[in-house]
Amino acid sequence: MSDKTKELNSSIKLVNNRLHFTGSAGSNDPVSIDYTAPLGDDLGYTSLELLLLSLSSCLGSAMLTFIRRMNRTITEFEITAKGVRKTEHPTGFASIHLEISLTSPDAIPEEVQNVIDLAEEKYCPVRSMIKGSTNVETSFKINNVR
Amino acid sequence: MSDKTKELNSSIKLVNNRLHFTGSAGSNDPVSIDYTAPLGDDLGYTSLELLLLSLSSCLGSAMLTFIRRMNRTITEFEITAKGVRKTEHPTGFASIHLEISLTSPDAIPEEVQNVIDLAEEKYCPVRSMIKGSTNVETSFKINNVR
Repeated sequence: MSDKTKELNSSIKLVNNRLHFTGSAGSNDPVSIDYTAPLGDDLGYTSLELLLLSLSSCLGSAMLTFIRRMNRTITEFEITAKGVRKTEHPTGFASIHLEISLTSPDAIPEEVQNVIDLAEEKYCPVRSMIKGSTNVETSFKINNVR
Repeated sequence: MSDKTKELNSSIKLVNNRLHFTGSAGSNDPVSIDYTAPLGDDLGYTSLELLLLSLSSCLGSAMLTFIRRMNRTITEFEITAKGVRKTEHPTGFASIHLEISLTSPDAIPEEVQNVIDLAEEKYCPVRSMIKGSTNVETSFKINNVR
């Protein structure tokens, strides 16, 4: 197995005579990937939905790591992502909005904002890869359950 | 349901007290997402593996669409992706290599290369989103089964 801190691998394979793929990496359960009708059949994630999951989880992982290092407790954590596509080819995202929701007895808004800024600037690799092309906005709410 | 040609949505939710998420979009089966040890537990795809799947499927869909418009028949199609990470934060990909393998009775190498170029330049949105940051190389082989 390769060292994932240095190199990552994946593969996709077409599984019908349209645009339905299964994708995989390592021993993970395969992911069903498809394109929307009429070109595809909506049988799986679109490429751009996978990009949203990639970005959300990258930011989420960096945030959780930093918040926990501050000895704050996070009991629930969710990110919903909305990507608005460009109207002309290439129809990537013009903007992405990430709505972060966390439940914590002791998280402090200023600290959470600092952690988001730090992740966006330096510790979220996926964010860095799309920085030149895509405007990413974030908002967050803390459910302060004691 | 939103119009996916304009807007896409996804969500992730933390499912343990480390970095294990489940991600989803629409009615697709949830995807398990995690980070490598020691920060995570290797219980799912990493964010950067999802990015490789996103890029591969985006390029693959564009390629298949164009090749079929040329009335060429593709019976098998696979892309393996290898991403080499930067050594300093943000540790996104310095380069990605996509190895494309297709089986066809009538595909012509020059046409396939043209289709790859067209997809990379204009019709693969994920490629366009990382163009400023990441060097993407492609190679292909045709299994010319008649």
